[in-house]
Amino acid sequence: MPDTAEEYLVTQLKNAHALEQMSLRMTAAASKAAEDDQLRKIFDTHHQQTETHERLIRERLEAHGEGPSALKDIAARVAAVGKGAAAVVPDDKPGRIVRDGYIQEQTEIASYELLRRIADRTGDRETVRAAERILEDEREAAAKLAHNWERAAELSLQAAVGGR
Amino acid sequence: MPDTAEEYLVTQLKNAHALEQMSLRMTAAASKAAEDDQLRKIFDTHHQQTETHERLIRERLEAHGEGPSALKDIAARVAAVGKGAAAVVPDDKPGRIVRDGYIQEQTEIASYELLRRIADRTGDRETVRAAERILEDEREAAAKLAHNWERAAELSLQAAVGGR
Repeated sequence: MPDTAEEYLVTQLKNAHALEQMSLRMTAAASKAAEDDQLRKIFDTHHQQTETHERLIRERLEAHGEGPSALKDIAARVAAVGKGAAAVVPDDKPGRIVRDGYIQEQTEIASYELLRRIADRTGDRETVRAAERILEDEREAAAKLAHNWERAAELSLQAAVGGR
Repeated sequence: MPDTAEEYLVTQLKNAHALEQMSLRMTAAASKAAEDDQLRKIFDTHHQQTETHERLIRERLEAHGEGPSALKDIAARVAAVGKGAAAVVPDDKPGRIVRDGYIQEQTEIASYELLRRIADRTGDRETVRAAERILEDEREAAAKLAHNWERAAELSLQAAVGGR
């Protein structure tokens, strides 16, 4: 393969790693903010899964000769996204954490759907396997959150009506 | 219902309207950027649907006594989100527009899943109906984009390898 295909794969891996770092922060913050045991459990479980995902992707980056130092430039990008997302967030905690969690999972699903196909076309079977494994967890987490729209709406409305 | 529930519903409607405005820009930009007829058609079709969605939500805002002037403060938030999203976007056009389009649809799905339940609990049947109608279109658009991961990966890799 030409160098550019390899470079492209590495760019996608860096992007995936940035998303995992963002997910680690998001799941920790959501668990802390959740005043509901059922929601907290979803975020705690997924935080543990995300620690594994971050490691899997970091190992793939290392396999492509990219050390942790190469990840430094992504911190600013992660911060920018967080800032952007926070800007549209209304101040309803339960609805917000379920919605933002769902969007984060769907963002990762989109990224891994692309990554696994790019890895497949560049012959990197290990990355294909890592992406497929992570995709399963992300889909499960998204489905769990999507089962909680009713609960999130109820808790948000209670907070809006009773909390002022 | 107490005033706060009404206020909360209006906040959610404003948020939905901001998302529709963002979606109008995104679908127009994606259609322009798409160098692939199949992808362009998806974005063109959804742009037309989005014009209807923007109107439906604007009408619901007006029904709650909120004129277009109340939407001004949202422009800055929309811009911030766009800036945040652009910050993590790698420079692979086909993959990027499919991924970002998918994330935009999922963001709207999450928002309307909450909105329709909040509207139901505050007795606003018209908003429930609008949210349900829009949800159908968003799900259809997300599914169409998700059918194009393979194409997006192929075109992105071609662009990365052949385009430099």
